[in-house]
Amino acid sequence: MQVLDLMNKRRRGEKLTTAEITFITKAIVAKEMTTAQVGAFLDTFSYHDMETTAELTDLTMALAYSGGIYDLSDLPGIKVAPLTTDGLGDKTSLVLLPLVASLGVPILQVVTPLAEEMTSPLARLAAVPQLRTKLAADEFVTTLKKVNAVAAAPVAELAPLQQQLAKLEIETDTTAVPALLTSHLLSLAIAAGVDALVVDIKTGNNGLSLKQAQQVAKLAVAVGAEVGRRTLAVISDLNQPIGDAVGASWEIREVIATLKGGGPADLRELVLSLGAQLAVLGGYLGTVADAREALSANLENGQALAKFHEWLVAQDGDASIVEQPDLLATAEFTATARAPRSGYIAAWDMAQLKQLRQLLGQTAGVGFVLNKKIGDSVEAGETLATVYSAAADIQPVLKLAQQAATIADKAPEHRLLYDVIDSALEQTD
Amino acid sequence: MQVLDLMNKRRRGEKLTTAEITFITKAIVAKEMTTAQVGAFLDTFSYHDMETTAELTDLTMALAYSGGIYDLSDLPGIKVAPLTTDGLGDKTSLVLLPLVASLGVPILQVVTPLAEEMTSPLARLAAVPQLRTKLAADEFVTTLKKVNAVAAAPVAELAPLQQQLAKLEIETDTTAVPALLTSHLLSLAIAAGVDALVVDIKTGNNGLSLKQAQQVAKLAVAVGAEVGRRTLAVISDLNQPIGDAVGASWEIREVIATLKGGGPADLRELVLSLGAQLAVLGGYLGTVADAREALSANLENGQALAKFHEWLVAQDGDASIVEQPDLLATAEFTATARAPRSGYIAAWDMAQLKQLRQLLGQTAGVGFVLNKKIGDSVEAGETLATVYSAAADIQPVLKLAQQAATIADKAPEHRLLYDVIDSALEQTD
Repeated sequence: MQVLDLMNKRRRGEKLTTAEITFITKAIVAKEMTTAQVGAFLDTFSYHDMETTAELTDLTMALAYSGGIYDLSDLPGIKVAPLTTDGLGDKTSLVLLPLVASLGVPILQVVTPLAEEMTSPLARLAAVPQLRTKLAADEFVTTLKKVNAVAAAPVAELAPLQQQLAKLEIETDTTAVPALLTSHLLSLAIAAGVDALVVDIKTGNNGLSLKQAQQVAKLAVAVGAEVGRRTLAVISDLNQPIGDAVGASWEIREVIATLKGGGPADLRELVLSLGAQLAVLGGYLGTVADAREALSANLENGQALAKFHEWLVAQDGDASIVEQPDLLATAEFTATARAPRSGYIAAWDMAQLKQLRQLLGQTAGVGFVLNKKIGDSVEAGETLATVYSAAADIQPVLKLAQQAATIADKAPEHRLLYDVIDSALEQTD
Repeated sequence: MQVLDLMNKRRRGEKLTTAEITFITKAIVAKEMTTAQVGAFLDTFSYHDMETTAELTDLTMALAYSGGIYDLSDLPGIKVAPLTTDGLGDKTSLVLLPLVASLGVPILQVVTPLAEEMTSPLARLAAVPQLRTKLAADEFVTTLKKVNAVAAAPVAELAPLQQQLAKLEIETDTTAVPALLTSHLLSLAIAAGVDALVVDIKTGNNGLSLKQAQQVAKLAVAVGAEVGRRTLAVISDLNQPIGDAVGASWEIREVIATLKGGGPADLRELVLSLGAQLAVLGGYLGTVADAREALSANLENGQALAKFHEWLVAQDGDASIVEQPDLLATAEFTATARAPRSGYIAAWDMAQLKQLRQLLGQTAGVGFVLNKKIGDSVEAGETLATVYSAAADIQPVLKLAQQAATIADKAPEHRLLYDVIDSALEQTD
């Protein structure tokens, strides 16, 4: 077997056998393939994706077992994980972790250190003073055992091939290839010892199309079933940020508000939907509706918030922010973008909002909060968004925020959840 | 302009503009593109080749002018170069250089240091004791001025992008992509200051198909014309080695024999055909037939051999091998592969002969000489090939030599030259 022969086989769109995938992934880990060869190999997926479960399962497991794994076998219960393709403002998992854990279900998140800086879960977590996200394998296990919740960036030994390839996929812009996306999502969680998964796949005007999202969802559910991890996929909307806030400290404020029973309606709905599925997969006795009710109660009665406090403390974070969110950073300058006309918010341009986020930079406390979301009515001159900036010259970002909104005469149709895909059930809509 | 946007544009098969090709090639030289990105970019050519002269010309010139160039402007005359896609046993240029120079036409060869080790022109030249092929720019120019002939590996400053990409194309197995092949062939010669080119494109059972060769020939002639370098392309056969000998010292012996007016018929014919074209392009007054006659005379009258001697001396080589070829290395063991049956040689399997060459290794003096070529009659037990080995256990290579030959009842049709493509003439056959 030769690396170039296998590269050319993929180039021709032929399937690789288990032995061939093992050979090529070992060659990548052992650096027997050059970086240019790996780049070319990844590019072939742009033309010929993996369409059979067998091939994709082989790839996923090769990524997952390319190094050490976390051994969670002496933790009782079914360990669940929320996975997502990530998006602007998506702080869902930060609510899900304490919330699902508050029902006694162990829930874990492996936070990829490679996400885009602006939407990185690590950047969000960094807003909590002193919180440690680099945990050794034993710390990861101990924290999960103690709190039922843990979120950490993987150590280099965990699924090193996943980490190595993920970096090169970002470089070569092949991260959205369904097979690559699916194998990355699943492999890291599998390496971290998860038993059941809910994958939240985002579709929107600056990301995967609904069709692509459906493809990834089907692949994820099929591969999950193949490797004995009960997997459920949800397709949800990313035509606007999840919740209202974008920017680490503003997102943490929103997480706290949601855990206190408030927060934006879309974030709360997503958290309850995904959380109920996760709870049931994790062995919560009862129906999804029962679980949803229990979760909803724990948002109201303070148990979710208490679990959040406990989790932050377990990872050395300053939990006083839970009672005093004002301790979180705030940028020096605040200004509001106003509606140029009256009507209804018809769309938010996600590419422009990303650009806005990028312009604000990485100083602590920068970000923006949308005061109007899709479907909301708005009067001319009313606030569309509040921008928190470290720079005094706030006009360019305000302009960008204003331009990103499309205001129309009628409220558009808009939904938060498109699809739930479960290998064990009929596909629902 | 963004590197990833341009990569994706090529991925979609769209043409790049001059500005875009300039941008991306500069980014490669400046290492602003990662190696994985360059690997992925090269892979896109496997799916979407460059089909317009404009785009390919831009790429060729970007490669040629990516670093310094050799300034031959104060050398009188039209400087010509023989280019080839290289093949097993192809020592043609080593005969062409002194032969064409003996007519007073300046001829140069830039020897790529990246060719496959087994068929590398550098390996051939290394068989001449003390010969220097690493020449600084001024040495290159001085030698050409003095002898009318020079062959050297490029210094790192000459067309660095060509050298950088060529290496990665070998790694990613994209060297045979017509646009990449064409741009590499031409750009290095252009950087070395050539005015006119004859490109010998090989087609055979282990390389380019006739169709691919024709595509490369057309592209080369079109790009050459576009950049003001008179270019002629010849498509010739590589269904068997060029000449009889394979292996550095055996090939040099054959070069000497040919320069003495002997040598194998196919090598002599190729040398006279290509040489006559080169001479006329280089300003030799008269027709191609006249030039051929003059070259033929110089093989007979010793002028080509004298020029070879002069050239070797100019590059510090031990020219005593010209009079005493036995000074060239000879491997310790010699054996002959014999015909298993009588008939005619119908084919030589080039992949097997390459494997044979590889098995013999790189010790000085190893190699093989074919005693029978395609179309020759052979009796059972007669010698097919003579193998020179550094290892006593010569049976496996003999077996390989025997297996590589197909013996049939009838002599097959076989030709040496398929096509001559000249932008200034009608295509001839």
